[in-house]
Amino acid sequence: MSQYQAPIEDICFNLFDVWHLNDYWQQQSELQQQLDTDTAKAIVEEAAKICEQQIAPFSMLADHQGVTLQGTEVTVPAHYHAAYQSLCEGGWTGLSGDVAYGGMGMPKALSMMVDEMLCSADIAFSLYPGLTAGACVALLQHASEDIKSVYLPKLYSGEWSATMCLTESHAGTDLGIMRTTAKPQDDGSYKLNGSKIFITAGEHDLTSNIVHLVLAKLPDAPAGSRGISLFIVPKYLPANTNTNNGTVRNGVAVGSIEHKMGINGSATCVLNFDNAVGYLIGQPNRGLACMFTMMNYERLSMGSQGLGAAERAYQNALAYAKDRLQGRETEKDASKAEPIIVHADVRRMLLNIKAMNEAGRTFGTWVASLLDKAKYDNCQQSAAIANLLTPVTKAFMTDQGFSACVTAQQVFGGHGYIKEWGMEQLVRDARIAQIYEGTNGIQALDFMQRKVIADQGKVLSALLATIRSEINSHTFTHSTVLLTYITKVEQILALLLTQDSRSQNGNAYDFLNLVSYILYGYMWYKTSLALDGNKHSANFIAAKTETATYFYQRILPKADGYVAILQQSPTVMDNIAIDQF
Amino acid sequence: MSQYQAPIEDICFNLFDVWHLNDYWQQQSELQQQLDTDTAKAIVEEAAKICEQQIAPFSMLADHQGVTLQGTEVTVPAHYHAAYQSLCEGGWTGLSGDVAYGGMGMPKALSMMVDEMLCSADIAFSLYPGLTAGACVALLQHASEDIKSVYLPKLYSGEWSATMCLTESHAGTDLGIMRTTAKPQDDGSYKLNGSKIFITAGEHDLTSNIVHLVLAKLPDAPAGSRGISLFIVPKYLPANTNTNNGTVRNGVAVGSIEHKMGINGSATCVLNFDNAVGYLIGQPNRGLACMFTMMNYERLSMGSQGLGAAERAYQNALAYAKDRLQGRETEKDASKAEPIIVHADVRRMLLNIKAMNEAGRTFGTWVASLLDKAKYDNCQQSAAIANLLTPVTKAFMTDQGFSACVTAQQVFGGHGYIKEWGMEQLVRDARIAQIYEGTNGIQALDFMQRKVIADQGKVLSALLATIRSEINSHTFTHSTVLLTYITKVEQILALLLTQDSRSQNGNAYDFLNLVSYILYGYMWYKTSLALDGNKHSANFIAAKTETATYFYQRILPKADGYVAILQQSPTVMDNIAIDQF
Repeated sequence: MSQYQAPIEDICFNLFDVWHLNDYWQQQSELQQQLDTDTAKAIVEEAAKICEQQIAPFSMLADHQGVTLQGTEVTVPAHYHAAYQSLCEGGWTGLSGDVAYGGMGMPKALSMMVDEMLCSADIAFSLYPGLTAGACVALLQHASEDIKSVYLPKLYSGEWSATMCLTESHAGTDLGIMRTTAKPQDDGSYKLNGSKIFITAGEHDLTSNIVHLVLAKLPDAPAGSRGISLFIVPKYLPANTNTNNGTVRNGVAVGSIEHKMGINGSATCVLNFDNAVGYLIGQPNRGLACMFTMMNYERLSMGSQGLGAAERAYQNALAYAKDRLQGRETEKDASKAEPIIVHADVRRMLLNIKAMNEAGRTFGTWVASLLDKAKYDNCQQSAAIANLLTPVTKAFMTDQGFSACVTAQQVFGGHGYIKEWGMEQLVRDARIAQIYEGTNGIQALDFMQRKVIADQGKVLSALLATIRSEINSHTFTHSTVLLTYITKVEQILALLLTQDSRSQNGNAYDFLNLVSYILYGYMWYKTSLALDGNKHSANFIAAKTETATYFYQRILPKADGYVAILQQSPTVMDNIAIDQF
Repeated sequence: MSQYQAPIEDICFNLFDVWHLNDYWQQQSELQQQLDTDTAKAIVEEAAKICEQQIAPFSMLADHQGVTLQGTEVTVPAHYHAAYQSLCEGGWTGLSGDVAYGGMGMPKALSMMVDEMLCSADIAFSLYPGLTAGACVALLQHASEDIKSVYLPKLYSGEWSATMCLTESHAGTDLGIMRTTAKPQDDGSYKLNGSKIFITAGEHDLTSNIVHLVLAKLPDAPAGSRGISLFIVPKYLPANTNTNNGTVRNGVAVGSIEHKMGINGSATCVLNFDNAVGYLIGQPNRGLACMFTMMNYERLSMGSQGLGAAERAYQNALAYAKDRLQGRETEKDASKAEPIIVHADVRRMLLNIKAMNEAGRTFGTWVASLLDKAKYDNCQQSAAIANLLTPVTKAFMTDQGFSACVTAQQVFGGHGYIKEWGMEQLVRDARIAQIYEGTNGIQALDFMQRKVIADQGKVLSALLATIRSEINSHTFTHSTVLLTYITKVEQILALLLTQDSRSQNGNAYDFLNLVSYILYGYMWYKTSLALDGNKHSANFIAAKTETATYFYQRILPKADGYVAILQQSPTVMDNIAIDQF
């Protein structure tokens, strides 16, 4: 595997030239003092160093070592300790945390870039700080001041880590049927009993305490998802609420760890709650909404996982394609071979990855910046678009990430299948992001019903209208093509709005894909506008310009397949009886 | 994982009702005495028993145990011995072998069905008999009578096994630059020196001898692929050419075994040849052509690997979807959940797999029957179409097989990522078939240049014309749709014929996919014609009819994406300099 090099130039291009985030940051009172272009770049470069030097070189070792369970103790790969310590010491674990509790207060657009690099370096490792950051978002928004003051500083500093405990063996997507219970105690606390599975970082030896955010049911809870409450259940309880040292062992313990396809450095635990002491977060029976604050944060991070793995896979495949001598295009001597990057089909594979990765990075930066605008300006329009795009980020970026890893593995031929090259690990690791935090099928349903149909397509239509208006104001080489596809999406949207919900659900996955390809077209439009001969090298401009053309000519037309499918009704799926499958 | 059940009904439907192979067999003097519908069905059922009972239940164990190397001995998973013995005792190892040398003389259409079942049961296991069968085809066609009489009986009986030794560490696709040498000896034999990698079943403890078919270069060989010769190099040399007992250890030994993403029960070896004694097969410097006899056989078997894994994955996903309770469509009680097969998006996933698997089985049977017609009738037209379709079988069926496994894994949600459910193994195992025996990118180039462009699209055009004529003679519900797509392929073909070879190569992969989808449409046409209320149950007919509709409405339209891509020139790929990637 080649040495990972963080794509710093492209990250800065997206932050500053495509999305002009420095200008935005300078308008925000909370950011203008501490964040300008140079600071942001320095932050990216420092994070890149840790990823490149302390994490990425050992990701195959982490896969090989995996995690081990002895008794109730879980051991992570040995080098994770030093790498995690570096994250803590640099303040990276609190990068986007609230300054009032010791966080660095950086915007999501910046922390998402760091997420991508961490995921390129080692997805399994990235989950330890990643889940903590998500939990902090939920606590900050929903927890009491007492809880926040005890837990947030320890979580931001990385001294403690956090989990999200949702799934039970019989209840994954359908959380409403969960069985874990929480019984109110006289002192205002709760006693939790039950068992949770698939708990990432549920037990490990990286931190002195682990804080579980747990969904459970109160005794009088209504049936279904409206009867779920959220609790904070630390592994070690602070001795009293005024100290923030966890000292008393709580009734939560790991039962077993899962043996998985990949992300072997991540401890995926069964956690048993046996009269574990917990504290309610938010309102009774409103826990799912609180947890979704964290879940939505995680869903964006999933996009970073897809992109991170795809970027690493691309770098490896590119290095191999330049190095591997096989066949010839211009060489006449049959005993001499040329690097395989000269072959048309190898270029097809590399460009398919490159064009989607770079659009993905632009897309991720966009969605993160919308969340920032929702937070700092309380901009409802930005919040609505971020809400619309969250399932797209999760599903499309992870599907594309996996696909990119598979394609990059293919560039290696037989060597791609051998463990020592590291490509098969990227495929195994990237696969999970399509599954967890709500499968991509669930994302598609969320997109279709909650994000599109619920408001009769209003937010999506407005977004498409804005894009059309932008393109009409500032045309570019591929304006006509992109406008044509926007019209196609609008026509399909109009058709979907006439359908019953069953048909809409049957169309959800293909519609999410259709919209995603067109939005990636919009990303290449924004990229094209941002190219400036005074700021960028001729090589950079040429690469972006031609990759954009490749996207419009050789990738975007895939959307025609989705259009053609969506023009047909999916009702045939219900003509097949269960015993005819 | 659910218990594998061989799809005997669908296999027989394809053999007898879709392709009427019993009628064909009865017209062949070599087959009519020994093969009728009942015999064929009995053969399929007997093979199914071994696959269902002796191989499939232990495939996860085989993955877990893997192969081990101690010194120069390789040990396969323990239960492989009994399963392999059953294959030998039943004559399965010589199923398609020539009767003159102890084979059973069965047609390819039948042995391909057995291949599929073996691959469903355990791809890694299937490779041991699979490579032997391929080697026998090459030996039968190219070896001297002396060689054939010594080796074929032992290989057909399964007492010995065989390998194909092509790849070297620096030479995979580009075999012309290989370095292994063969030096002529006074007794007519050769001494081989060199090292080969990725040798499937290169060393193992299933058979008493292993026969290597090795590509090497003679001292005076011309450079490139026209300077390669084929040799037979047994692990144990027969004491003299008149005995067929291998007794003298030859100078070939395993150097190491590869650690792979999957097919862990298959021993993938580095083989070192140190003055190994070999015998020339076929003409000097014409070895590549001889080896391609075997390679083409293997490429069809790759199709069976894709289909076999996909069938197993489908059965598992279907069982899970019927069993797993999550969410509700008609149930009103929020505390009760329904099987996930009620959900539209789960049906989408299952039907995408089912429609492609069944078309794939029809397709594989077709290609195999064309090979049979080329063999028994010396039918040049059938041979030409089989030749055209070989890379399609290899590439499209393995791409679809992998995709089906990934989709089936997705049906399981988080459980699909956990080893104990077996789905992640299917994904890992199916992945290799896209890579070995010529990567799928190489298949696409072969299809484009050697199979389509070389004859100016003549065979492909004739095939499309035949299909159109068939549809016009016997119309069916989806005639118009299918005819429209055939016209689209013809238009793209006309366009390709005007392009330079560089553009054609850039278009190769997408064109192979386009043609494949349309041919799968033809398969569903043939299926629809074969449904007969007197022979098939109403359930069977309904399932096929609705799945066909699903294919035409929800899968075939994907072809529009490929059409749209192919209407654009791929030359943009060459506008990007290597340092701009």
